[in-house]
Amino acid sequence: MEFIVYLAGQIHDDWRDKLIELVKARELPFTFVSPQTNHDRSDNIGEDILGNQPSNLYKDDAASSINNFRTEVLLQKADIVIALFGDQYRQWNTAMDVSTAISMNKPTIIIRPESLIHPLKELSNKANVTVDTVEQALDVLAYIFE
Amino acid sequence: MEFIVYLAGQIHDDWRDKLIELVKARELPFTFVSPQTNHDRSDNIGEDILGNQPSNLYKDDAASSINNFRTEVLLQKADIVIALFGDQYRQWNTAMDVSTAISMNKPTIIIRPESLIHPLKELSNKANVTVDTVEQALDVLAYIFE
Amino acid sequence: MEFIVYLAGQIHDDWRDKLIELVKARELPFTFVSPQTNHDRSDNIGEDILGNQPSNLYKDDAASSINNFRTEVLLQKADIVIALFGDQYRQWNTAMDVSTAISMNKPTIIIRPESLIHPLKELSNKANVTVDTVEQALDVLAYIFE
Amino acid sequence: MEFIVYLAGQIHDDWRDKLIELVKARELPFTFVSPQTNHDRSDNIGEDILGNQPSNLYKDDAASSINNFRTEVLLQKADIVIALFGDQYRQWNTAMDVSTAISMNKPTIIIRPESLIHPLKELSNKANVTVDTVEQALDVLAYIFE
Amino acid sequence: MEFIVYLAGQIHDDWRDKLIELVKARELPFTFVSPQTNHDRSDNIGEDILGNQPSNLYKDDAASSINNFRTEVLLQKADIVIALFGDQYRQWNTAMDVSTAISMNKPTIIIRPESLIHPLKELSNKANVTVDTVEQALDVLAYIFE
Amino acid sequence: MEFIVYLAGQIHDDWRDKLIELVKARELPFTFVSPQTNHDRSDNIGEDILGNQPSNLYKDDAASSINNFRTEVLLQKADIVIALFGDQYRQWNTAMDVSTAISMNKPTIIIRPESLIHPLKELSNKANVTVDTVEQALDVLAYIFE
Amino acid sequence: MEFIVYLAGQIHDDWRDKLIELVKARELPFTFVSPQTNHDRSDNIGEDILGNQPSNLYKDDAASSINNFRTEVLLQKADIVIALFGDQYRQWNTAMDVSTAISMNKPTIIIRPESLIHPLKELSNKANVTVDTVEQALDVLAYIFE
Amino acid sequence: MEFIVYLAGQIHDDWRDKLIELVKARELPFTFVSPQTNHDRSDNIGEDILGNQPSNLYKDDAASSINNFRTEVLLQKADIVIALFGDQYRQWNTAMDVSTAISMNKPTIIIRPESLIHPLKELSNKANVTVDTVEQALDVLAYIFE
Repeated sequence: MEFIVYLAGQIHDDWRDKLIELVKARELPFTFVSPQTNHDRSDNIGEDILGNQPSNLYKDDAASSINNFRTEVLLQKADIVIALFGDQYRQWNTAMDVSTAISMNKPTIIIRPESLIHPLKELSNKANVTVDTVEQALDVLAYIFE
Repeated sequence: MEFIVYLAGQIHDDWRDKLIELVKARELPFTFVSPQTNHDRSDNIGEDILGNQPSNLYKDDAASSINNFRTEVLLQKADIVIALFGDQYRQWNTAMDVSTAISMNKPTIIIRPESLIHPLKELSNKANVTVDTVEQALDVLAYIFE
Repeated sequence: MEFIVYLAGQIHDDWRDKLIELVKARELPFTFVSPQTNHDRSDNIGEDILGNQPSNLYKDDAASSINNFRTEVLLQKADIVIALFGDQYRQWNTAMDVSTAISMNKPTIIIRPESLIHPLKELSNKANVTVDTVEQALDVLAYIFE
Repeated sequence: MEFIVYLAGQIHDDWRDKLIELVKARELPFTFVSPQTNHDRSDNIGEDILGNQPSNLYKDDAASSINNFRTEVLLQKADIVIALFGDQYRQWNTAMDVSTAISMNKPTIIIRPESLIHPLKELSNKANVTVDTVEQALDVLAYIFE
Repeated sequence: MEFIVYLAGQIHDDWRDKLIELVKARELPFTFVSPQTNHDRSDNIGEDILGNQPSNLYKDDAASSINNFRTEVLLQKADIVIALFGDQYRQWNTAMDVSTAISMNKPTIIIRPESLIHPLKELSNKANVTVDTVEQALDVLAYIFE
Repeated sequence: MEFIVYLAGQIHDDWRDKLIELVKARELPFTFVSPQTNHDRSDNIGEDILGNQPSNLYKDDAASSINNFRTEVLLQKADIVIALFGDQYRQWNTAMDVSTAISMNKPTIIIRPESLIHPLKELSNKANVTVDTVEQALDVLAYIFE
Repeated sequence: MEFIVYLAGQIHDDWRDKLIELVKARELPFTFVSPQTNHDRSDNIGEDILGNQPSNLYKDDAASSINNFRTEVLLQKADIVIALFGDQYRQWNTAMDVSTAISMNKPTIIIRPESLIHPLKELSNKANVTVDTVEQALDVLAYIFE
Repeated sequence: MEFIVYLAGQIHDDWRDKLIELVKARELPFTFVSPQTNHDRSDNIGEDILGNQPSNLYKDDAASSINNFRTEVLLQKADIVIALFGDQYRQWNTAMDVSTAISMNKPTIIIRPESLIHPLKELSNKANVTVDTVEQALDVLAYIFE
């Protein structure tokens, strides 16, 4: 039995690589997928494929339609969703991905720093599990196989 | 035929009252519901009902469970969702409400200032309509009856 | 017991008025809703509400988002869908409305002239009933109460 | 991870072969399925299997029931739908396939020439992404693996 | 609180009238709907509305499409389904209505004579309650209000 | 706007009457429904309607089919579920009703004494809100209207 | 791509073996599953596993619960359903399996002799395709791969 | 064709090992998954991963969120659910797992001693099959392949 895990959220550090390393070290049967983590590519993908748009509004709309396409394809394949919220950005699409996953009955783990306990409280309450660190998220994943 | 509209989002100004006024003036058959708009009551509702909690983490969890209960009851009754994002707060529960509504196939309108076009692009792309002002949202509502 | 009927399709003649007249004459408990039947208003609604768009592509996208919002609101309220295809236009949004209605398990009647039997064959096969005239559609509606 | 892509739409040119070539060249893990692309066989399949029918109406109904059976089997297996609308035909079953796919939450790409922007506007607005060329559709597919 | 009850099954005696009488006598808040109980009208409705068909096969298909339309409209409104199987006919559409109702999570009661225990065993096992008489079905309905 | 509340759980004291009294005093627009609260009638309903059964196993099966019918009818009408677990009984059907309600996305409140915190922990975690007293459950209900 | 086909219906001749032979001869990638085709074993399975029951009613209920369990497991795995109705029996569980499959959106083929056109008309109208012979059903299956 | 079976229920004896042994002996293609069967680990998993909690209430909530995460992941993968209720514990989470499985349309077998016939009657009535022993459950599983 194999599980596909969608790694939503922050794209400005290497938390995904870290988690994947740890999972490999423990030889757990998880496959990971994620959104585009190259921020510039993600912002420009609309114009990269469809050509110049008349303004930032339309550039953003074109990019988001392709990002949403990608997310929807991968999220539907996923058995589990893990989302990491970082300190700095608004990350509304992370909140969107988590909420969508929960509505699709995908078991979901949120990773967030203590500073975000309050603003994330309603979302945390809806997710299955909320943890502080990547290591704890891994422990929850690994618990499936004990 | 009557429609129930859930007004998600910002609770720090009177945009809901403004919209309701405008709808009354046009005599349109909409009933409006919304989250708790008293910020302190919303933050304290867990302790108000369940008593003191051991720390802010648990206070927030208690409050959010009751806020989510309320939202879920009202969202399921709603035919339409309108969400206003303001400039200042992270409003992840607004993003959560919008995403949940879209997953429930509730027709959804987002209202947001120009400054939020970029961070909200993926969510806007998933909503039915995104507008800049409360008046425009009203025009979209009114269009149903033309 | 009351039934709401969504009247999809052609907006270039008065078939809706004709059907509604006939229903009134028979005193049947149906309420009718429909898309925007003013063609110009339907094409311009995006710019009418959101202001000028940079080109026809964006004007069309803005209009369609609001037309789709309206359709979605009314289709979800509907117990039954009737769609009339006329001889002249491509009417892909009529095909879209019918298919969406069928996917939502809304009992559906198609009205189409003989000339369209062939190009509409797959859609007709999926709808509950296909008829040639408005009067026949009315007979099917009335049969519910016999 | 493998993805199945249903290629709906125009059957009068070789756009499917072209797309499949390009995907092979890039070694992307997609499997493609499609409707019957032999137009005559598609029109005659009812009589080919069930024998002569009393008139074209019944011939078309017999054929469409078997075409719809095939489409339904393959569409349910598909992870992604791409639909190409050409300039010449009414292609209402293409519009039907796209709408059905969207109702089934299949991520969907529409390919259409500029001349069809206006008549397809509501359908484009509901699909995830609309592009002008087969190459652009391929770029969107490939983006899933970046 | 009112409940709508769909009365599926045998149309060759007056069991529906009998049940409705008994419900009125007890002043219970149920509204009853049912299929066309005039057998000839049910068999001829296709030709009555659509005109002569080339053979019995097509006459039956035309009639059944309109009967299925009616059933689907009324079944979707129903809160409860009661189906009576009689001794004499094959009544496959009764079995179809019951199975469809169960798949739609409509609470379902089957009424059948002892002689049908064996051939109906799988269907009885899936329904909520199976009884021998109309009076017992009424007792089950009435139990909701105790 | 009116809400229907299903009151699941313990039938050996008058907690339902108490809650209904309190709601009336506050003039809140809730209608309450519940399982059969007469324990003997609930145990005997199968034999009361269907006649003697060959042993307790069959008596219980007959009763439970009718109790489940009633619950299913009322639960589907309910907007909200409140379940009270008491100290003494196993109440597996209460656990069943709560789990079913949660699976149907009915917003759910559990009332349980402190002594049951541990054995009910997984169920409490899935419900929206868990409280200790009927008064607290009422406060949660009333919060919807603030 | 492999497809699983559930073969519902008549168990008193060897139509399943015949179909499976033909499929093998054409080297088509279908796997077939079916109900218990040993009539006695199917009737006795309840008592075979659970021991003697107090009467035929209970024997039938025990058997049907295990037959339904088997059908449900295999039907959920199936991509396609083919059901053959024979001349002689009432076969209400065949009608049940077909209706359940249709409600689960499983593409469905009915095979029936001409003598059953009339009594099966509503069910035929709901299935995707109705044919007269096993060979025709095979042709429909094979059409998926053309 | 392989089937995944979730083994819910009692964790204080070795019934799972016994069942798995018997299945291996018969060379049946079932894969088994189950909840955490180490009772202490299950009770402590919240604190083991998230650290000390302020009281037993919070310790239990933390543990249950991770246990529910595990159950949800595995239950969604399962084709079949078997639940064993033992004599001694309240096992409300077993009742919860069974009810959730039934709501998810997972074919379900309950194993329970005679002493539990009465308190489990509503749940038994909703499950597909109820048996007394592990061997009988195995016979029901094996029947799928006859």
